[in-house]
Amino acid sequence: MSWDHVWIDVNLATMDPNNSAAYGAITDAAIAVKDGKIAWLGPRKELPDFDVFSMPVYRGRGGWITPGLIDAHTHLVFAGSRANEFEMRLEGASYEDIARAGGGIISTVNACRKAEESELFELGRQRLNALAKEGVTTVEIKSGYGLDTETEVKLLKVARELGRNHHVDVKTTFLGAHAIPPEYKDDVEGYVDLVVNNMLPKVIEQGLADAADVFCENIAFNLAQTEKVLTAAQQAGLDIKLHAEQLSNMGGSALAAKLGAKSVDHIEYLDEDGVKALAASGTCATLLPGAYYFLRETQMPPIELLRKHQVPIVVASDFNPGSSPICSTLLMLNMACTLFRLTPEEALKGITANAAKALGIEEKVGVLAQGMQADFCLWDITTPAQLAYSYGVNPCKDVVKNGVLVHQ
Amino acid sequence: MSWDHVWIDVNLATMDPNNSAAYGAITDAAIAVKDGKIAWLGPRKELPDFDVFSMPVYRGRGGWITPGLIDAHTHLVFAGSRANEFEMRLEGASYEDIARAGGGIISTVNACRKAEESELFELGRQRLNALAKEGVTTVEIKSGYGLDTETEVKLLKVARELGRNHHVDVKTTFLGAHAIPPEYKDDVEGYVDLVVNNMLPKVIEQGLADAADVFCENIAFNLAQTEKVLTAAQQAGLDIKLHAEQLSNMGGSALAAKLGAKSVDHIEYLDEDGVKALAASGTCATLLPGAYYFLRETQMPPIELLRKHQVPIVVASDFNPGSSPICSTLLMLNMACTLFRLTPEEALKGITANAAKALGIEEKVGVLAQGMQADFCLWDITTPAQLAYSYGVNPCKDVVKNGVLVHQ
Ligand SMILES: [Zn+2]
Ligand SMILES: [Zn+2]
Repeated sequence: MSWDHVWIDVNLATMDPNNSAAYGAITDAAIAVKDGKIAWLGPRKELPDFDVFSMPVYRGRGGWITPGLIDAHTHLVFAGSRANEFEMRLEGASYEDIARAGGGIISTVNACRKAEESELFELGRQRLNALAKEGVTTVEIKSGYGLDTETEVKLLKVARELGRNHHVDVKTTFLGAHAIPPEYKDDVEGYVDLVVNNMLPKVIEQGLADAADVFCENIAFNLAQTEKVLTAAQQAGLDIKLHAEQLSNMGGSALAAKLGAKSVDHIEYLDEDGVKALAASGTCATLLPGAYYFLRETQMPPIELLRKHQVPIVVASDFNPGSSPICSTLLMLNMACTLFRLTPEEALKGITANAAKALGIEEKVGVLAQGMQADFCLWDITTPAQLAYSYGVNPCKDVVKNGVLVHQ
Repeated sequence: MSWDHVWIDVNLATMDPNNSAAYGAITDAAIAVKDGKIAWLGPRKELPDFDVFSMPVYRGRGGWITPGLIDAHTHLVFAGSRANEFEMRLEGASYEDIARAGGGIISTVNACRKAEESELFELGRQRLNALAKEGVTTVEIKSGYGLDTETEVKLLKVARELGRNHHVDVKTTFLGAHAIPPEYKDDVEGYVDLVVNNMLPKVIEQGLADAADVFCENIAFNLAQTEKVLTAAQQAGLDIKLHAEQLSNMGGSALAAKLGAKSVDHIEYLDEDGVKALAASGTCATLLPGAYYFLRETQMPPIELLRKHQVPIVVASDFNPGSSPICSTLLMLNMACTLFRLTPEEALKGITANAAKALGIEEKVGVLAQGMQADFCLWDITTPAQLAYSYGVNPCKDVVKNGVLVHQ
């Protein structure tokens, strides 16, 4: 056997649906890497003979290896802080006061329009580093704080640049239809035209996006506008997904499912018909416990219905300055269990195997199996549930990305 | 001016009540350290002349300096993980199932009784490191997972040892009356006698505790038992404090106030009479948002009443394996604001100036003022509210402890 390196004295949480054990576990296991891929994995005692002097043999000291974590929904390229409005609100200011003081999403939009690419890159890099320390190896990043062509393009360029300069892989999503910019507040159709006819072509031309997204809500874009943007994006060759049913049941999820979206995200207000539509189309349901926590929502997403209809559940951070300013995919595991009552196994699946599905990369990453890309983490834990149960002492000991050991 | 070092290009959140600005702020400031103490602080332009070649001059790049953070309530020395029962509960197991499987506090007690001091020390060290990375310079650690004399002594010894071997200062609290051990389940008075007549004298004799604490609750110790333990501890020269009014209004806070306790902790069910009692005695109210979050409580502590009667509000992690397995004082700032609606300034005061009061060390630490111990942190933030608003990208750049720069 000629591998690049091999790990022994480890347990594997493969998350492989072909392995019926909880977490797809293989205890007392080994895993070998060759040319960036998983070349062999299985019980230690079945490990083929190999020359121990011909390659590095890493010992996991009885820890667990999971697939590299995947955060399938973030807005992590942005400038500006919304700490002031957070403070104003807690000091009793009304939403009007805050708007008058320049707060709300428009403050982030203004900061992003003004920011240099280099500043956005540096901010994004710090955030990617924080996620990477906790075992994230793939992250999705959305635009949506530009709301004009130039800035939307700039945000996506920075996201692409981050992917090229960091070991964390970046999938980019064009979210021009995130909010209605003040310039178009009386002409939403005009803004949708801009998104479809100006922004989208530029984004496509420069190869800046892997997917497109829309915020479908009564305070943002209606169903017809959503369909217009998603259809155009799809025709341009992008995957599609949707911010849907966060504040009300608009039918966005059913529309997205009909169009074959990869995921619908938030979905606190989704009903059973919507869940059935997701099941029929194989669309993932992405839960965002950070936003639920930060906004102090009380409407729970329809977890039981998602289970009943076997919709793949994804968990993501939604990291953004307005509604989820917590940049930690790992903490989302705890929040998904504590707030949404997912089991630790469901939550972990939501940031590995199912997150890969939501990004359309499930053939490459998200589970540990022979032939898959060698993206995995070694954790100093005695049971996988510990990843969801506790937080603060970072148990991530080593990360292997594309077969390369990234020292922690 | 002959100092050990000086910081310029910084803003100070002094938290000093003698400074009426929000956060006791001094912008464009300087702060100088000599012999472990703050020798000078004030606006940069008032900084006395000094020989820049005679001492290190650190530049804060426009960041903010706060007092070193103080976590006034933790149980961070323990062995064993409760991840399994967390998982069982989420998979639908009842409390009885979990008890039958050996879960609950008794599982932690058993693990602590079995653990070597060296194992407890190493676990505690990792947790202190995690807190220290986020700017904590003083932490309180309680016993209470031994429930027999030998193990209570062992836990306090380890806590003392941690304080001697880490730059973080450790204040220890004897919490023998944390729960009723199974051996005494039909003889609570017998256990209280053990605590008072056996454990306490040994703890005192070896100088292992700075304070004593009791869990006063219908599932633990009643008022008379609480009073017995606290009075004995006080006569032995310890400060006293109390876990009170977490699950019901037992009158524990009023008792603790009557006895002159430094703090009462949890207090979700405290009423106005109890709050008035705290105000009259100068007892701090310690809020533990991590436990509120993790246990999904809905009863809010009486924040408005605490404000009205000007009771010093403390915020702490309550880090423990059963009800608050989140080892992050900094995340508690966010939770205190998000869940309890404290203002960022109140929350920050709760882990600096007021936390020092709760530990009886307010003459030394908790605010930035001339003559105080030089315990402070430099944060890469543009406004102090950012510490409470966002989490995940650690903004803690440098820590000075006892006048010594601890590199991050
Ligand atoms: Zn989002
Ligand atoms: Zn406690």
